[in-house]
Amino acid sequence: MIRLGIMGYGNLGRGVELAAMKNPDVEVVAVFTRRDPSSLKILSEGASVYSVSDAEKFVGKIDVMILCGGSATDLPVQGPAFARLFNIVDSFDTHANIPAHFADCDAASREGGTVSVISVGWDPGMFSLNRLYGQCILPDGKDYTFWGRGVSQGHSDAIRRIEGVLDARQYTIPVPVAVEAVRRGENPELTTREKHQRECFVVAAPDADLARIEKEIVTMPNYFADYDTTVHFITMEELQRDHKGIPHGGRVIRSGETSDGMGHVIEYSLKLDSNPEFTASVLLAYARAAARLSAEGVVGAKTVLDIPPSYLSRESGETLRATLL
Amino acid sequence: MIRLGIMGYGNLGRGVELAAMKNPDVEVVAVFTRRDPSSLKILSEGASVYSVSDAEKFVGKIDVMILCGGSATDLPVQGPAFARLFNIVDSFDTHANIPAHFADCDAASREGGTVSVISVGWDPGMFSLNRLYGQCILPDGKDYTFWGRGVSQGHSDAIRRIEGVLDARQYTIPVPVAVEAVRRGENPELTTREKHQRECFVVAAPDADLARIEKEIVTMPNYFADYDTTVHFITMEELQRDHKGIPHGGRVIRSGETSDGMGHVIEYSLKLDSNPEFTASVLLAYARAAARLSAEGVVGAKTVLDIPPSYLSRESGETLRATLL
Repeated sequence: MIRLGIMGYGNLGRGVELAAMKNPDVEVVAVFTRRDPSSLKILSEGASVYSVSDAEKFVGKIDVMILCGGSATDLPVQGPAFARLFNIVDSFDTHANIPAHFADCDAASREGGTVSVISVGWDPGMFSLNRLYGQCILPDGKDYTFWGRGVSQGHSDAIRRIEGVLDARQYTIPVPVAVEAVRRGENPELTTREKHQRECFVVAAPDADLARIEKEIVTMPNYFADYDTTVHFITMEELQRDHKGIPHGGRVIRSGETSDGMGHVIEYSLKLDSNPEFTASVLLAYARAAARLSAEGVVGAKTVLDIPPSYLSRESGETLRATLL
Repeated sequence: MIRLGIMGYGNLGRGVELAAMKNPDVEVVAVFTRRDPSSLKILSEGASVYSVSDAEKFVGKIDVMILCGGSATDLPVQGPAFARLFNIVDSFDTHANIPAHFADCDAASREGGTVSVISVGWDPGMFSLNRLYGQCILPDGKDYTFWGRGVSQGHSDAIRRIEGVLDARQYTIPVPVAVEAVRRGENPELTTREKHQRECFVVAAPDADLARIEKEIVTMPNYFADYDTTVHFITMEELQRDHKGIPHGGRVIRSGETSDGMGHVIEYSLKLDSNPEFTASVLLAYARAAARLSAEGVVGAKTVLDIPPSYLSRESGETLRATLL
């Protein structure tokens, strides 16, 4: 059995618990929280809740610590801190800062003799893998990533910060004609606006100026100004009834030629009812790989690009060759 | 530069030459044939054509030998024979015999101190990888492989063996309603007939009994009897004009739940203008991996499931992390 610790108990931490229930070779032994441990009710039988400050006592009792905090402030600190003590897996997803986070975790893991697998999930993660495979197989080509239809937490939060907004949900939507052009192998040059649209469902305060809120949304720099954005004002009841899920997805498409006029299109797509549960399931598969790498004496930071696919599986090489190839 | 040898100069061997032109870090140094070497005109500048029996003289001059023969009779012999001398990559695709071929090449590679990467291509190959990743991420689920629309050489050959048939081309076609049901996450149980259809374009001899040929095709055991098969009789001119390509493709779909009612669908699809050119491009990427593994002192047989994705790339880990994650 691979003994897991879960650091942080939000949507992602709960997703890891659910994923562990689908994998008979792992067990969650402890969940760590910054909240009062007695206030948490967890799903895993046989596991207990502890304060983050108690984590150090679990050295030798946890094979892999799965870090379920956020990329903005939690993971840059927790990654290196816990990589000194445990094998870790995280979902660090601030793309521009991945090299620095990798270096920090690598140094900490080498100090502690552990393995850190960083930036695991679907983007970065499975989408990164598919960009890599696509580029290596079709070097004379172009790749495209489309996200959605799905909820963007960052964009939803940005709307919630507008005065007069009580709650909001923002969906990122790929533009169908752009996806179709890419699928036909046309390798188009696409602007931001041509690739994605944004659709917002907003609950406004009773006396709020709806026209002003809409204008503030659609003109918001970075978040909305470069996109075609639609705003729908709905009631709190409608929001809670129709938009309570966290679906997401998207696709990576690589299109290229192997000789004159011989075109090929590789497409990897995800349709996810729950973004955090799916991400957690990827984290769990890579926790298994981290445990195996560590057992083999490997030390340092890794990403999904570095890890042999078979390390994600609990089956032997013989079984995989006989059943999957 | 990675120095490549190409063993066998059919569609696949020519595809490897084309792929080498797209990859500036490799060069083809020799093409080996069982035909008269002086009868072959190859594409690679700087490479020469030799008899298969001369291959042994190239030990130390070729980093990876890419075996481009067939799985029925060539590769079971050539794999172990050349794995004793060179790092090899092959596209062995007789699924049931992969474990035995792996064992043979592994033993030969260990004897010769080489790396053999076997069963590389898209199925087995990229499809196998996607079955593995899908099963590891969504263990509570089901996967489906659909092939086509594309030319099946084996089925085309089977039709050509019928009396009165001058030439034929057979397309394997996935059944759209089956694909849609799988994409909706319904995890249907599908019979052979429900998954694929077969469409045949046949050139018959002028005096042939078309009704008899059609009946022999649609009732042929293993090849056609279990499928809905359509037969079109066409002229030789039409066949050569409209069916000269070797397109193929298909998709691997994994659908599963992470908790009650939370469903996810992962789909990997290929749309290929040229089956052999695409397969050759995958072989080339894994030849790079074989060279790198061998340079690191690794010995023995590997499959796509065993090889870290980053080994397919000529870019450094730093570059890959900065640009692809």
